[in-house]
Amino acid sequence: MRMSKGVEWAIHTLLNLGAVGDRRVSVTLLARAHDVSEPYLTKQLQQLVKHGLLTSTPGPRGGYSLGRSLDQITLLDVVEAIEGTTSTFHCAEIRCCGLIGELSPPPTGPCAVMVAMTRAEDAWREALRAETLGDIRSALEGKVHNAVRAALEQSR
Amino acid sequence: MRMSKGVEWAIHTLLNLGAVGDRRVSVTLLARAHDVSEPYLTKQLQQLVKHGLLTSTPGPRGGYSLGRSLDQITLLDVVEAIEGTTSTFHCAEIRCCGLIGELSPPPTGPCAVMVAMTRAEDAWREALRAETLGDIRSALEGKVHNAVRAALEQSR
Repeated sequence: MRMSKGVEWAIHTLLNLGAVGDRRVSVTLLARAHDVSEPYLTKQLQQLVKHGLLTSTPGPRGGYSLGRSLDQITLLDVVEAIEGTTSTFHCAEIRCCGLIGELSPPPTGPCAVMVAMTRAEDAWREALRAETLGDIRSALEGKVHNAVRAALEQSR
Repeated sequence: MRMSKGVEWAIHTLLNLGAVGDRRVSVTLLARAHDVSEPYLTKQLQQLVKHGLLTSTPGPRGGYSLGRSLDQITLLDVVEAIEGTTSTFHCAEIRCCGLIGELSPPPTGPCAVMVAMTRAEDAWREALRAETLGDIRSALEGKVHNAVRAALEQSR
């Protein structure tokens, strides 16, 4: 079970935009910043716009900028924007199928397996919610911030 | 991001085998128990055998039985047997690529994004490790245990 690479791309792009303030940056430059596919990055950025994490301004002087500050964006916000909010656990209610399903009484509550798996997944989502992109920015070296600014201030 | 359905099948099959003691049960009957595909279930059970969660005995009187008690099998054991132990977060070190990679100093430690994502995933794995199949069995109604035993005591 693996996340799409879009989550990595989205987090780095948000961090990069956080380093250049209100400056709008084109997707072309954001893709060149990490040498990633522009069409695929565009799809990820559209998801971030849809979820309010980015603002997109059309036109020749347009581009992307943060929808809110990095301190107000959690890792969970990004993961759910890119991967969705569906449970990672696949529950097809097989307890109700086959010989055991026929012989069991009708279920009176959710499957205990689903309940336990959901509890563990909630711990993961809680941990993702506890971490903001502002925290991650603070962990980056000053030289990295300088490199990001220099890269995103190149010609569009 | 979704787990394979094999995790659900593996957990239910282990719980079912826990209800019939040392009795060996054929994969045919285990598949009929929940009306699932026998070839796909066989692949999952082979992973459980490889990880010591099940024992497989060949021959006409053979079949599968638990490799250790349900109290000694955690949800993490099952998830890692079926899904592997690779991180769910996809880190391709894009921080080192493109314009930003060229302008940044050589990294002196792991990527802060990877560190934060790993911390959250560790919380999920810890929660999976805290939950045993014995705990889940305790949450099931007595009538379900009876149904499982009745189903697995049918002809092989």
